[in-house]
Amino acid sequence: MKKIAVFTSGGDSPGMNACIRAVVRTGIYRGLEVYGINRGYEGMIEGDIKRMHSHSVSNIIQRGGTMLKSARSMEFRTPEGRKKAYDNLSALGIEGLVAIGGDGTFTGAKVFYEEFGIPTVGCPGTIDNDIYGTDFTIGFDTAVNTALDAIDKIRDTAAAHDRIFFVEVMGRDAGFIAIECGIGGGAEFVMVPETKTDLGKVVKSLKGLRKSKSSSIIVVAEGDELGNAEEIMGMIKQKIKDPTKEFKVTTLGHIQRGGTPTAQDRVLGSRCGMGAVDGLLAGKTNCMSGVMNNELVYTPFAECIGKTKPLHPDHLSLLDILSI
Amino acid sequence: MKKIAVFTSGGDSPGMNACIRAVVRTGIYRGLEVYGINRGYEGMIEGDIKRMHSHSVSNIIQRGGTMLKSARSMEFRTPEGRKKAYDNLSALGIEGLVAIGGDGTFTGAKVFYEEFGIPTVGCPGTIDNDIYGTDFTIGFDTAVNTALDAIDKIRDTAAAHDRIFFVEVMGRDAGFIAIECGIGGGAEFVMVPETKTDLGKVVKSLKGLRKSKSSSIIVVAEGDELGNAEEIMGMIKQKIKDPTKEFKVTTLGHIQRGGTPTAQDRVLGSRCGMGAVDGLLAGKTNCMSGVMNNELVYTPFAECIGKTKPLHPDHLSLLDILSI
Amino acid sequence: MKKIAVFTSGGDSPGMNACIRAVVRTGIYRGLEVYGINRGYEGMIEGDIKRMHSHSVSNIIQRGGTMLKSARSMEFRTPEGRKKAYDNLSALGIEGLVAIGGDGTFTGAKVFYEEFGIPTVGCPGTIDNDIYGTDFTIGFDTAVNTALDAIDKIRDTAAAHDRIFFVEVMGRDAGFIAIECGIGGGAEFVMVPETKTDLGKVVKSLKGLRKSKSSSIIVVAEGDELGNAEEIMGMIKQKIKDPTKEFKVTTLGHIQRGGTPTAQDRVLGSRCGMGAVDGLLAGKTNCMSGVMNNELVYTPFAECIGKTKPLHPDHLSLLDILSI
Amino acid sequence: MKKIAVFTSGGDSPGMNACIRAVVRTGIYRGLEVYGINRGYEGMIEGDIKRMHSHSVSNIIQRGGTMLKSARSMEFRTPEGRKKAYDNLSALGIEGLVAIGGDGTFTGAKVFYEEFGIPTVGCPGTIDNDIYGTDFTIGFDTAVNTALDAIDKIRDTAAAHDRIFFVEVMGRDAGFIAIECGIGGGAEFVMVPETKTDLGKVVKSLKGLRKSKSSSIIVVAEGDELGNAEEIMGMIKQKIKDPTKEFKVTTLGHIQRGGTPTAQDRVLGSRCGMGAVDGLLAGKTNCMSGVMNNELVYTPFAECIGKTKPLHPDHLSLLDILSI
Repeated sequence: MKKIAVFTSGGDSPGMNACIRAVVRTGIYRGLEVYGINRGYEGMIEGDIKRMHSHSVSNIIQRGGTMLKSARSMEFRTPEGRKKAYDNLSALGIEGLVAIGGDGTFTGAKVFYEEFGIPTVGCPGTIDNDIYGTDFTIGFDTAVNTALDAIDKIRDTAAAHDRIFFVEVMGRDAGFIAIECGIGGGAEFVMVPETKTDLGKVVKSLKGLRKSKSSSIIVVAEGDELGNAEEIMGMIKQKIKDPTKEFKVTTLGHIQRGGTPTAQDRVLGSRCGMGAVDGLLAGKTNCMSGVMNNELVYTPFAECIGKTKPLHPDHLSLLDILSI
Repeated sequence: MKKIAVFTSGGDSPGMNACIRAVVRTGIYRGLEVYGINRGYEGMIEGDIKRMHSHSVSNIIQRGGTMLKSARSMEFRTPEGRKKAYDNLSALGIEGLVAIGGDGTFTGAKVFYEEFGIPTVGCPGTIDNDIYGTDFTIGFDTAVNTALDAIDKIRDTAAAHDRIFFVEVMGRDAGFIAIECGIGGGAEFVMVPETKTDLGKVVKSLKGLRKSKSSSIIVVAEGDELGNAEEIMGMIKQKIKDPTKEFKVTTLGHIQRGGTPTAQDRVLGSRCGMGAVDGLLAGKTNCMSGVMNNELVYTPFAECIGKTKPLHPDHLSLLDILSI
Repeated sequence: MKKIAVFTSGGDSPGMNACIRAVVRTGIYRGLEVYGINRGYEGMIEGDIKRMHSHSVSNIIQRGGTMLKSARSMEFRTPEGRKKAYDNLSALGIEGLVAIGGDGTFTGAKVFYEEFGIPTVGCPGTIDNDIYGTDFTIGFDTAVNTALDAIDKIRDTAAAHDRIFFVEVMGRDAGFIAIECGIGGGAEFVMVPETKTDLGKVVKSLKGLRKSKSSSIIVVAEGDELGNAEEIMGMIKQKIKDPTKEFKVTTLGHIQRGGTPTAQDRVLGSRCGMGAVDGLLAGKTNCMSGVMNNELVYTPFAECIGKTKPLHPDHLSLLDILSI
Repeated sequence: MKKIAVFTSGGDSPGMNACIRAVVRTGIYRGLEVYGINRGYEGMIEGDIKRMHSHSVSNIIQRGGTMLKSARSMEFRTPEGRKKAYDNLSALGIEGLVAIGGDGTFTGAKVFYEEFGIPTVGCPGTIDNDIYGTDFTIGFDTAVNTALDAIDKIRDTAAAHDRIFFVEVMGRDAGFIAIECGIGGGAEFVMVPETKTDLGKVVKSLKGLRKSKSSSIIVVAEGDELGNAEEIMGMIKQKIKDPTKEFKVTTLGHIQRGGTPTAQDRVLGSRCGMGAVDGLLAGKTNCMSGVMNNELVYTPFAECIGKTKPLHPDHLSLLDILSI
């Protein structure tokens, strides 16, 4: 293998730049030529590909976003689109790919590999942490700390006014961000897609809790089965029927995707990126480079996409106990 | 004057604790007994008042929110409510008041002073900066920096995807936060209540700009005359009619009210608090202690409430020029 | 077991408050009375012990430092001191202890348990991460992120001036902080106590690197075998002998011990705290409650103190490869 | 005037990039060609000058440091050096200069203008705030907030251990940073070059204070007439002679120069930059564009360099009163 290319795809996440940097520098260190593909599969189809050098990735490890940009590509879902992409890579002599992204990215990579056979290793870049085959995804820790910082700020004002706040965090299918910043933020309740939310219990607690507590914060993952934060607040407000209680909603939104990555995300991104290149050189393909139990591991794309990563039961216990 | 009391009222803002601390310590330094009233006018009516010492305000200068809590009081708007409040203060021998808050707080303080004659000096505690008689209000700088940090994060992800983001910041009647974080965040446009928003110009620019710009951020004050960010985005989307452009809205909400105060807010809060006590001792009343042109000044409540503080024309020019 | 007490000892670390909160609330949740001992073993000897309730630990999870304060006790190293401590605990009927701290804390706890038999479980509270029996210690992640933030700031000014910066971080016997923030900060070199520093290689690289690099950052753990950052800079300066190169040293010092804890430290502190109480109730003693491979585990104090936790070889490789 | 050039010189400061951006975009907006000179006077001599476009300054407003780099030039102090610089500018047809920096930068600019007559307007870029002709310098607010954040962290650990901390901040000739972060950080004492430090009073207070205070923080400007923090701590330690008291020093160093600029520094940098270009176009020269009492003003270089900006007496009072 002489030439490899790296790209980011799907939703961006903090730490992707650290990962790109590691791919580029490990590749060069191992004697490879490394190329960067702009805007994911879209750029692959358009041939938006450039040679990368060691200095191309100087001073980016601390930047949020992705220097290679990202996009969602409709055309790559068609055989014609993928053929164009393959032709562009072939023309440059690219013999290996590193795909940084989440579920959708790996699904595309799997199909592409199975059709055209260019060896491909993935790196788990998404804030949601919902990818099997790695304990944490690149960007998760930063997103959690951003959400936590917001919760700390909201608690200041919630406490000043004895208010009940609903904070909606990202997580369409998974509650990892919600659980983590809920524990860390001292939330009274956390509502996640993975567990059935018992509204009666929440209402009962909120009525009772208010005597000793100066404020209450309820963290809601956007994908909770009962609805989003606004909707859930509506239900609870109606059941509590107490005009003296003030309810407020804050939806954190896209601030969770940006920002300077934390140490953990930079190190994890670096490690997965190095692992991806070394994996390609060792003959790995159609799999993801992740970190489990502090060791680099490779998991087939099929498992990463197909298996569900469960919330840890200890975390659910902590929430129940610590909000008393 | 032997005994004074301090309270916070209305929306809380970062730096209120620094102000309380300065009132308490300046009072003690000048030989006074100082009392703290919890939850603003509500606590005044309920007699929720406690003696404060130098150590009562230790280690609070860096905290967001207000250690005396805040509330909006309906009862204080009635003569009976105010009579109860007066009786409670009289019973304790309180001879002077420091009222930390905004427009509503000062309106209440003015009425109360005119009815019962307890000397009262205010301190401008609100994130909105919309109070005449002080160049900046306590909490404004922190709110702007919080909003700016959010915009920086959003730009990371906006740039990764070539998106157009609408960021809604606080400011029901005033655009100070929007203008300041718009300039600081390199926003393409800022929409504020004080100026008429020219939607046609924005649409035209957005269509043109996109060739050289990788992303666009539009900051909207919640009180813009065209509507909130969601509504304005709807109008623009409809006029641009380009399905390849992605539009997103983020409403920053209550995170702007909390958080560790900046240096400026701590120093300003300290200075206004000291000024309020020294003002009371010098016979001032029915006025606010603010800082204009870096000097402590006292402005009658009537002016603080009645006069409008305009946006600086230089700031409006900066926005036009720097977004090219 | 009906009554337990918790204390913090040795150097404080961010997340200790989250741990105290978890001990108090888990204890109460399980039906125990919980006491807090001020200033570690010193307060135990002086009988500075107070009952703690659920609200005693409200609103502390986000605070740095330790609400129970810490101290280093000479008297506890004497049999007489320990006897006094035991008598105070006995008088209150304390039947179990949770000791939050590092090596020194556990050494004291082990001796105390072996002499007086009060069941004791420890929690790993130290920024250094040098305790066997847990993947991370409480406070490590915050310290690393604080150091990383400082390195990011220094890189801004280093890059503006083409300078070589030596940044000294904490770590008398262990290089965990240095390695982690070195990888995350994109450092050119990291010098740690665990590995022999090859000065010749550094000098050679610094001479060579400067053509393509705009600045160089070298992270030095305070306990590196060659000396501290100031001393190492002196050696290198002398060998490079190039008056056009500017060398600077920054010693981060105690800022690494303070600050709002990160999500990871709050969650880890909470989990270890819960684990310590549940451990006591399950009959554990003379051991530490830690988290390895994302599972709660108990490790005898003897091992925590006696065994060395090694740096991960992957991290050392990353440093070599990514600084090219 | 058709062509202007901008450069940064001397110590870098956060907000310089915002200023460069404003110069470039205002220049282009007004129909000029704008050039950037790398590494200050050094690059002027070497002819390291490049054309700048609107997109050249995209996405830099939030970055610390200076994209044009800075340097201190010995050669520019010689007539030959300045002649070379002039020849390079002439060759490109540069008719106006914007010099961003501090005292040294303006001294050089003044001499250069007087010798060669190229109109020059300065912008006050330095963290020290010690330039006459502007209420604040670009970078001061960020430096203060960085120092304040460090003090907050140190207070966490100081409070946990009842320690006395000496924190040294930048300020060789001026105490602005020290005063501002001393008030904001709730310091017990602040020692600055402008006032005589009364060591006896400090010692007396420290002995007395310790009963009610859990910790003490003393902020020292590096240029205090008694010495640096380490030296002053030595003197105090010797006078207090109390082995139970722990004294610690932290020297914040270069972290104060870097980091993401605050809103104030970005807005101030933008405003001064716009003012510099508009000043050149209006025929101003040999002067600095600053902001006093919230209005843009131009002050002759001779005054900026020659006059001293005093500390505000209110700030000195605040320190005395609020540390009780």
